[in-house]
Amino acid sequence: MFFNKGWDPNGMHVYITGGSTGLGFAVAKLLTQKGAHISIVARDQGKLDRAIKELQTVRQNSAQILKAYSFSLNTAANSSAALKAVCDAHGGTAPDAVFACAGSSKPMFFVEMSEQDMTEGMTAGYWVQAWTAFAAAKQMARQKRKGKIVFVSSTLGYMSFVGYASYSPAKHALRALADTLHSELLLYGIDVHIFFPPTMETLGYETENLTKPEITKRIEEADDGLTPEQAALGMFRGVEKGETHITADLITSLFRASTRGSAPKNNWILDGIYDSIAFFATPIWRRSVNKRVVAHMDEHRTYLGKNGFFGDT
Amino acid sequence: MFFNKGWDPNGMHVYITGGSTGLGFAVAKLLTQKGAHISIVARDQGKLDRAIKELQTVRQNSAQILKAYSFSLNTAANSSAALKAVCDAHGGTAPDAVFACAGSSKPMFFVEMSEQDMTEGMTAGYWVQAWTAFAAAKQMARQKRKGKIVFVSSTLGYMSFVGYASYSPAKHALRALADTLHSELLLYGIDVHIFFPPTMETLGYETENLTKPEITKRIEEADDGLTPEQAALGMFRGVEKGETHITADLITSLFRASTRGSAPKNNWILDGIYDSIAFFATPIWRRSVNKRVVAHMDEHRTYLGKNGFFGDT
Repeated sequence: MFFNKGWDPNGMHVYITGGSTGLGFAVAKLLTQKGAHISIVARDQGKLDRAIKELQTVRQNSAQILKAYSFSLNTAANSSAALKAVCDAHGGTAPDAVFACAGSSKPMFFVEMSEQDMTEGMTAGYWVQAWTAFAAAKQMARQKRKGKIVFVSSTLGYMSFVGYASYSPAKHALRALADTLHSELLLYGIDVHIFFPPTMETLGYETENLTKPEITKRIEEADDGLTPEQAALGMFRGVEKGETHITADLITSLFRASTRGSAPKNNWILDGIYDSIAFFATPIWRRSVNKRVVAHMDEHRTYLGKNGFFGDT
Repeated sequence: MFFNKGWDPNGMHVYITGGSTGLGFAVAKLLTQKGAHISIVARDQGKLDRAIKELQTVRQNSAQILKAYSFSLNTAANSSAALKAVCDAHGGTAPDAVFACAGSSKPMFFVEMSEQDMTEGMTAGYWVQAWTAFAAAKQMARQKRKGKIVFVSSTLGYMSFVGYASYSPAKHALRALADTLHSELLLYGIDVHIFFPPTMETLGYETENLTKPEITKRIEEADDGLTPEQAALGMFRGVEKGETHITADLITSLFRASTRGSAPKNNWILDGIYDSIAFFATPIWRRSVNKRVVAHMDEHRTYLGKNGFFGDT
C-alpha cells in the first residue's frame, strides 16, 4: 500500500555497494541495461575497473553516468565518505535507490572461533550494509528525497544451523534493521526492501568454503543455489513489484512464509500455501539435520582433539 | 527429542548474568527457591550486595552456594574473566546452566542516532550475551560437561517497528545465535534455549522510556507487559519443558508461531492455531502501525526541524 508499484530504474541514480563482483555486479549490469545511472563501490580498484568496462558495453544511452569508487565500507566514516563521493557526481543529491550488496561469510565451528572471527562476522555481514543505510537514510531525509534502500540478507537471515554462529546473527540483524526501517522510514517516504538469496556461485562462496566445516557442507548439499544473474533478476523483480521481503528460490520462500512475523506478505494465497508446507517440512528438515549433527559427534571430538582443543584449558 | 525434559535446578550451579535486577534477579530468586547454587554477575556492587542479601532469605538449605561478582560483560575478555570467577568458586567446573539475562535498550529515531548509539545498541543487546555464551560453550565443550545455555531476546527479536533500529537487530542476532547453537552444540550435548519476553516493568524499562520517541510509546500502549517475576516464571517453565523458543505472553506467542522458521514448535496444535491467527492478525497490526507512523509525518518534520536536523547537511 505504501510502495512504488512497478518501480522503473530508467534515468534513476542507483548506488550499489559490493558492485564489482557477484550479486552486486549482476545487479549493476541489469540496471545499466534498464537505463539507470550506476555508482558502484567496492574495495579492489582492479575489479572496479573491469566492472565499469563491462557496464559500458551494456549501456542503453550516452547520458547514463556509470561510475566506480574504491572504499572499504567497514566503518560508519568510510561508508559516509563513499556515499558523499557517489553523490558528488550527481550535484550532491542522494541516490534514488541504494542496493547494499556488500558482505561476506566465514563459516567455522563456534568453539574454534576467535573474538575477531565473531566481531568480523558482524562487520562483514551487518555493519557493511547498516552503515550505508545509516548514511543514506539521513541524507535522503535531510534532502526530503523519497528514495529506496534495498538490503541483501541470506536464507541464513531466516534460519540457521551448525557453522554459522558469526554469519547468521549478522544476517538476522539486517532483517531486523530492514523491518524497523520499513516502518520508521515511512516518515520520510523512503521504501525499504530486503532480499534473501540462497547459495550463489560466486567468488565469495568459494572463499567461504575454505573455512566451512565438513558437516556444514554436507547439510548444504541439497541446496542447488542460483547464479548471481538469476539472483539479481529475482531481487529486481521483487523490488519492481514492491515486495518488502524478497526471495527467489523455493526453499527460502518456505522459510520466508514461515518466518514472516509482521513483515508484509507478497501473495496471500501463495504465502499461505508456503506456510502450510513449511509447517510440516521445516520440522522434518530440522530433525534430519539434528540427526546428522549428532552422528558427527565422534568424528568431531577426534577433530577437536587433533587441533589441541581439549588440552588448551 | 534431545532436551532434558523436566529440568530440575535443585543442586545445580546456575550462572545468571544481569542477575542483580529485573528479570535476571527474578530468575536468581526463583532458582534459589528451587535449591540451586547461584552465581550472579552485574556491574553495580551495591545492587549485587542487596540482591545476594535477598537471595539469602529464600535459600532452601545451607549447602547452597550464593555468590555475586561485579563485571561489565561488554567485551569477550571481561565475559571470560567473569565466567572464570564464577567457576573458581566451584573448583573450576563449568556451570550446569547459564542464564544470559544482561542487556538494555535505547530506542531513538534512526536519523538522530550517532554511530555510537548504533554500536552500543549491538553491544548492550547482543554482545553482552554472546560473549558469555562464547566463553561458556568453549568451557563446557572442553570439560565435556553437558550444560545448558539460555539467552534472553525480546518480542523485538521476532519483529520490529519505528524506534528500534539499534535494539531489534541485536535481539534478532541473539535469536540467530541461539538457533545456530541449538544445532551446533548438539555436538557437545549442550542444550540451548532462548526467551522472548514482552515489555517488563523494570528499571531498564524506565531508562529506555527516557529516549523513546513519542510515536513508539503510542504504538506500545496496547502492550500490557509482565512483571519480572511473571517473566522469570514463564522462562523457567519453558526451560523445564525443554522448549527451545520460549514465550510467556499471547502477543509474543503469536509472533513466535509466525516467525518460527526452522525452530522447534512447542505444541503442534496450539502453535498451528497461533500461526493461523497471526496469519490474519499481524497484517492488521502492521497496517494500523503504518497508518499511525504516516499520520505522524508532519509532527515529526516539525520536531526534526526544531532539532536542527535539516540545517545540518
